[in-house]
Order: sequence, then C-alpha cells, then structure tokens
Amino acid sequence: MRLPPRAILALLLVGAGGGLVGDAGHVESGTTVYLKHGVPFIWHSAIWFVVAVAIGTVAVAELRLRVDPPRERPGGVNEALAGIAAVVGIYGLTAVVRHAALLPSTVLICALALLTWTTLGDGIPALICALAAAIAGTTLEAILAATDVAHYADDVNTLAGVAPWLPALYFAFGVVAARLGEIGTTRLR
Amino acid sequence: MRLPPRAILALLLVGAGGGLVGDAGHVESGTTVYLKHGVPFIWHSAIWFVVAVAIGTVAVAELRLRVDPPRERPGGVNEALAGIAAVVGIYGLTAVVRHAALLPSTVLICALALLTWTTLGDGIPALICALAAAIAGTTLEAILAATDVAHYADDVNTLAGVAPWLPALYFAFGVVAARLGEIGTTRLR
Amino acid sequence: MRLPPRAILALLLVGAGGGLVGDAGHVESGTTVYLKHGVPFIWHSAIWFVVAVAIGTVAVAELRLRVDPPRERPGGVNEALAGIAAVVGIYGLTAVVRHAALLPSTVLICALALLTWTTLGDGIPALICALAAAIAGTTLEAILAATDVAHYADDVNTLAGVAPWLPALYFAFGVVAARLGEIGTTRLR
Repeated sequence: MRLPPRAILALLLVGAGGGLVGDAGHVESGTTVYLKHGVPFIWHSAIWFVVAVAIGTVAVAELRLRVDPPRERPGGVNEALAGIAAVVGIYGLTAVVRHAALLPSTVLICALALLTWTTLGDGIPALICALAAAIAGTTLEAILAATDVAHYADDVNTLAGVAPWLPALYFAFGVVAARLGEIGTTRLR
Repeated sequence: MRLPPRAILALLLVGAGGGLVGDAGHVESGTTVYLKHGVPFIWHSAIWFVVAVAIGTVAVAELRLRVDPPRERPGGVNEALAGIAAVVGIYGLTAVVRHAALLPSTVLICALALLTWTTLGDGIPALICALAAAIAGTTLEAILAATDVAHYADDVNTLAGVAPWLPALYFAFGVVAARLGEIGTTRLR
Repeated sequence: MRLPPRAILALLLVGAGGGLVGDAGHVESGTTVYLKHGVPFIWHSAIWFVVAVAIGTVAVAELRLRVDPPRERPGGVNEALAGIAAVVGIYGLTAVVRHAALLPSTVLICALALLTWTTLGDGIPALICALAAAIAGTTLEAILAATDVAHYADDVNTLAGVAPWLPALYFAFGVVAARLGEIGTTRLR
C-alpha cells in the first residue's frame, strides 16, 4: 500500500461516516430499500454497505497514488473538508430530488459531479479514479438490484435497476476519494 | 467576427447540446410546453429553439470580445467545462424546483447566477454580456409565450408569461458564453 | 466599535435585505408562520425579524474583528457579493426543500454551510463567528417557537421546535457576516 496506515484509518472512518449519512437519506426518502434484513444494521444501513463504502474510499485513494504521484500541494484540512462536503452534499441532493423529474435531476447531479472534478480533481489522474468508481460502484449496485438485495424506487431505477444519476454520484465520490488520498499520504505520514 | 472559426463551431455545438439537455428537463418536468408542432423536433426540443441557443451562444461570446479584449489567462478545458457545468446545472435546477415555492426557487436561481458571475466572470465585461443575454432571452421567450408558440406552466409564468427565474438563468448563460468566448478565441485560434 | 460607520450602515442594509428575501421564502413555502400579527410587517416579515437580522449581521461582523484582525486581502465587491449570494441562496434552498425528506435536506444544507466556511472563511476566526451565530440564532428562534411568536411547520420542527437545518443556515450566515466584516472594515473606512 502506498497510503500510510494513519491515512487508511482516516479514509475508512470518513468513508463509513459519509456512507452512513448519505445512505440514511436514500432510505428515509424512499429512494432505496433494503430487501434482505438478515444482517446487522447501523442506523439505516446494512453493515456490509458501510464496510463497502469505507473500503471503496481506501481503494480509490490507493488507486490515485498508483496512477500518479500526488500533486505537490494537495492541500490540508480545508481541502479535505471541502471534498467531503461536496460529495456528501451531492449524496444528500440525490435523495432531496426524490420526487422531481428524473431527467433534469440527473442533469443537475452530472453537472455537480463535473464541477467537483474541475474544482477538486487534478485532471487525468482524478478522472481515472472517478471513472473507475463510477463503473465499479454502478455495476455493483446493479448486481445488488438484480439479485434483490436492495431496490431503487420504481420511478428512478431506469438505469439497469439503479438511478441514472448513480454513476455521477460515484464519479464525484471517486474525485474526492482521490483527493483525500493525495492529502492523506502527504499530511498523515 | 472576432471569434476564430473553430471557436464558433465549438460554441455552436456546446450551445446546441446545452440547449437540448436543459430544454428536455423543462419539457419533462412540465415547466414548458411547445404549442406548435409543425416543425421538426430534436429529442424534446423544436429545432428552432436549439438553433437559437446555439447562435445565441456565439453571439454573446462575440459580444464579449467586442466589449473588451479577453483576460490574459482565460483558462482552458477545465474552466470551459466548469462554466458549461455551472449553466447546465442551473438549467436543470430550474426544472427540479418545478413544484417548490416559486419565490425561494427564484431567490436560489438568482443567487447561483450571481455566484456564476463572481466566480467565472471578469467583472464589467461579463456583466454586460450577462445583462444582454438576460434582457434578450427573456424578451424573446415572453414574445413566444404571448404568441402561443410555447407556454410556461400556469403556476410559474408570473413574469410576462415566463418564469421569474428566467432572467437569472439567461444571466448565468451570458456569463458562461462570455467566458467561453474568451477561452475559445485564445485556445482555438 | 471596530467597524467603521459606513461599514455598519452597509451591513445593516445587507442584513435587512437578505433577511427580508430569505424570510419571504420561508413564509411563502409554509416553512414558517408568524403567529402574532400585532406588529408592523414589511413584505412577509415582522419588522422585529428584519431588525434582528440586520443587527445580528453587524454583531457577527464586529465579533470577527474582535476575535482577530482581518486577513490581509479580504477581497472587495466580488467577494462580498459571492458571500451574500451564498448565504441567501442557502436560505432560499431551505424553503425549496420544504416537502423533501428532512434528513437528506439537512445533510445538504450542512454540506453547503461547510463549503461556505472552507471557501469564504479564514479558518478559526470564521469558525468562532459561525458557531456563535449558529448557537445564538437557533436558541433565539427556539425561544420564539416555544413562546408561540412564530412556528415552524410540524413536519420540519424536529429540533427544539425549529428545523434541524437551522443551525447550518446560521453557521453559513456567520461565516459570511464575518467575511463582510473583514471586507467592510478594509474597504469602507
């Protein structure tokens, strides 16, 4: 691992916390429903979801460091908090638009994901991480939907059983996890 | 024309694409309805609307260059994408707020238009383009509404037959088209 | 007072204007209702509310200058407008989300408040002002709710009678008022 142990720990905590808060919004708004309850739940989330987001955060951050060395000045607490706020805010917004028209909601989330990349990403390395997260995250959730583990509401599940804005949400997540990897490896060594 | 041919082509494509995506959100959400269908449609939009937005994008960009030389470092792909994402995102948001209270929705769109100007504009030259776009765009759409070519939903058409947030949307469009003019004339020469 | 008289005047006007616009959105959307009407009203707001926001803006700006000297280059008109747009936009958004699920709405407002701090604040001094505004503002409104002077809608008043996003709104307000204090004392002397 290129990530130092303290950065890994911080990323696990941030990923778990962000996943819990965002997923709670999806559950409360009826955007998603867990269909299998034979596992422990933390707040509104199945424990495996929280673990997956935590590990995914570390994986993307590690990927970022393997793609390219971190930028020279990746920032500190301020930039880390801005990134976390950006992706958790977009996560919340995907639940807030629950009953709005799906097409413009998706356009809005895509636009915000793009803005996240142009403001917090460092070009190609961040783009690689964002696309990896978008493809992996959407594919995994599509499998969960197809296997009846979790369900997206019928009026939003138009993309292989998941919401059409889901790739954009994971894209923004990938940009931010990459940035946190840059910051963490520089500041938490 | 001050704009080089390649920049004009790029602006036409960006304008047409942004117009298509944004207008589709308005149509899907029921914010607007086309009343005359005797013309070709592309996706959800009458072809004349797409052409008008494309030409309007070029016109505002050209206006920007006639008002004042572009700033010394207008940016590149990153700034262009950020601008496009900003205005397309606001466009989508005007459809997302379809059933929200109209006054705070308008306040929100105006605030985002102002933020677009302070972050992407270069002061007075961008302001001139933004105001020109706001006045021309709103006037044209008010004429279309008055002549029953297109219709804004009854619960949002409180400003001369169009939505009260429409000037702010065109204002943000003007800021971004001006910025794209600066970038295009510098990078696509 | 550390604030020069012209800055105090500007802050009073900005605070009153922002309070009027934001409060009108809360009233129009049914987020809040005034229960006592035995006082003069300006537009949708009881006059004491407008006065309180105006004075609160000055108070937070003054607090900022007493906590720490303003940063060396606090910015000018552009940064002031960006700050005003940020907090008025968030204020409008709290009314736009009137019928969305409360948890993700609160997450979204908190994320935007955090972004306001990381982009417009100057670290600890801005944080002190933001926390002071959040605590004082929320406490005062909770008292108004408990004494039946004003009322938050039953489906949003889950935090001591007020909305759970209210501390975040005041937090953003505190960040911006602090920044306006920095700008005002430098530019309006």
